[in-house]
Amino acid sequence: MILQAIKFENGVLKVIDQTLLPHKNKWVNLKTSADVTVAIKDMVVRGAGVIGNVGAYGAYFAAKEVNGGLIEYKKLAKILRSARPTAVNLAWAVDRISEKIIKNPKNMVKIALEEAIKIEAEEIAGSKFIGEYGAHIIEKIYKKTKKTVNILTHCNAGALAILGYGSALAPIYISKERGIPVHVWVDETRPRNQGANLTAYELGFAGVSHTLIADNMGGLLMMRNMVDLCIVGADRVASNGDVANKIGTYLKALSAKEHGIPFYVALPTSTFDKTIENGSLIEIEERSQDELLYMSGLGKNEKISSVFIAPKGTKALNYGFDITPSKLITELITEKGVCKPDKKEIEKLFVK
Amino acid sequence: MILQAIKFENGVLKVIDQTLLPHKNKWVNLKTSADVTVAIKDMVVRGAGVIGNVGAYGAYFAAKEVNGGLIEYKKLAKILRSARPTAVNLAWAVDRISEKIIKNPKNMVKIALEEAIKIEAEEIAGSKFIGEYGAHIIEKIYKKTKKTVNILTHCNAGALAILGYGSALAPIYISKERGIPVHVWVDETRPRNQGANLTAYELGFAGVSHTLIADNMGGLLMMRNMVDLCIVGADRVASNGDVANKIGTYLKALSAKEHGIPFYVALPTSTFDKTIENGSLIEIEERSQDELLYMSGLGKNEKISSVFIAPKGTKALNYGFDITPSKLITELITEKGVCKPDKKEIEKLFVK
Repeated sequence: MILQAIKFENGVLKVIDQTLLPHKNKWVNLKTSADVTVAIKDMVVRGAGVIGNVGAYGAYFAAKEVNGGLIEYKKLAKILRSARPTAVNLAWAVDRISEKIIKNPKNMVKIALEEAIKIEAEEIAGSKFIGEYGAHIIEKIYKKTKKTVNILTHCNAGALAILGYGSALAPIYISKERGIPVHVWVDETRPRNQGANLTAYELGFAGVSHTLIADNMGGLLMMRNMVDLCIVGADRVASNGDVANKIGTYLKALSAKEHGIPFYVALPTSTFDKTIENGSLIEIEERSQDELLYMSGLGKNEKISSVFIAPKGTKALNYGFDITPSKLITELITEKGVCKPDKKEIEKLFVK
Repeated sequence: MILQAIKFENGVLKVIDQTLLPHKNKWVNLKTSADVTVAIKDMVVRGAGVIGNVGAYGAYFAAKEVNGGLIEYKKLAKILRSARPTAVNLAWAVDRISEKIIKNPKNMVKIALEEAIKIEAEEIAGSKFIGEYGAHIIEKIYKKTKKTVNILTHCNAGALAILGYGSALAPIYISKERGIPVHVWVDETRPRNQGANLTAYELGFAGVSHTLIADNMGGLLMMRNMVDLCIVGADRVASNGDVANKIGTYLKALSAKEHGIPFYVALPTSTFDKTIENGSLIEIEERSQDELLYMSGLGKNEKISSVFIAPKGTKALNYGFDITPSKLITELITEKGVCKPDKKEIEKLFVK
């Protein structure tokens, strides 16, 4: 069974507290738009798709709270959509609901709920399509080798990031459901350890065979023929197919190219940014150095605690993602199909 | 001033406790061969060169303890040289002293002390030569760019590993002494964090400008022209110039090649293993998965503590080093000079 990151039941949105993963499995009940804003701000929920969906239910709560008052609704929606300014999906989901509400404020509660449910259903369906297209690729390798297919992934692009099957992990989950033997090399993904914290957790939950590795290890594994393919997610894809994804992705793509190992990027088509011509124009977020200097985990007495891992006063640099040029990418796997990372091919996806 | 890893004073060997670095600077006094065996076993001292030298003083203590008795000396020497079976330098240093003692057992105490002091002096002199040859390379870059030279290094191949100036860090220390502006990107070096723990510490001690980065970051830095050259150490070098070094080295070498950035390996010539034809024949040590699953650092109340960083029951794979093929290496920097990583060129070093 795939982990569900959020559940909307009896008017309450239950979300898994991702700040405590993998050490505690704690569900939090969100009942108001303010609850939602705080949960997004505090990163109780994270991952592009998940944030968008939680925001959508937040807009529903806002509609309920103001009971038809459009001016008040707009105020709450504004607070909601700025809970994490860089999360494109959050603004997109809230705006989608707001536009419908503006046209028919009297029915705002009903409209908001229907639209939130629709956004969720669309994402789950999209992730299943990504999974189907990707599983076809994995199955082809399995038919050739008749051996467990070894897949390397970086960061977390699973069900904790995108509802349903996730993006990069979707082909793996669908393969597992179809009985294709798969094993996943899970990159730890320093400095925020999303691989060790989230990917290892959700693969374990779903019973997918996996092994945690240091980010440093992928090169050797590829050299030793221990990796059949790589699948990663994407934060943003330029119109020429260059991919911005979690820092470290690029090094794996270089190694995969060197060893003739296919390197796939799985993403919902909403991740394409047609306004950006190529990867060099994507702005790279510089994050707090504390993410690198402190490491959190389960300490004594089963308490989550953090340790400082460098000499006092050490300066650190922390870029959030890097750019993988399209020449290193075998294909992009989207809910609309698979394509070469190339401007014309990408455009064809949207014509279909 | 460069950090000194060991000091022999008034018949006592003082060593810096490397298990507590970078959080505590604690010196331990070793006075007996048993003290030395324990310090090596418990990794209070580590690093190829340092272990050899500490072992040499251990042989001197052993000679003093048995007071001329050759049979007893041999017993102690055997215990000493097996304190860390994979440390080639340890066996080499102890054997070198034992051979001299066997020829003249009556003078064993004097002989052992003289030889231990000689071994130490040779290593320090060798590391200075590595530094001089390497600094010449850095200086050439500086003369061209007239800007701070940015050097990326992986793991710790400094004064905490090889007495004097270290190997990979030696060219950096000598450059600093000569007033060439340098800045070092220090790879954290998961899973054992020798970069964050040791390299950052000794560069800070010596006042060399440096910034800690996640191992994942080097590719992006190279893409953005933020790295002028890479210098790493080596655990073992095959006769064709393929290099075994800390896991993750290979990924940086691939990226450096992609971006036309020179990639140097600095090593004492004792690191060459002429019995091994190429890198694929070097056995790769698989280490405990706990090195990856637990992370240690400074916790609450300034206490060194460790946290578990993955879901309970997670399996991890932990290879200690990887192989960088000679085609990715610009040159090898040794105490006998600089050469291309190529069988004939390496052989010429030994003829000089």
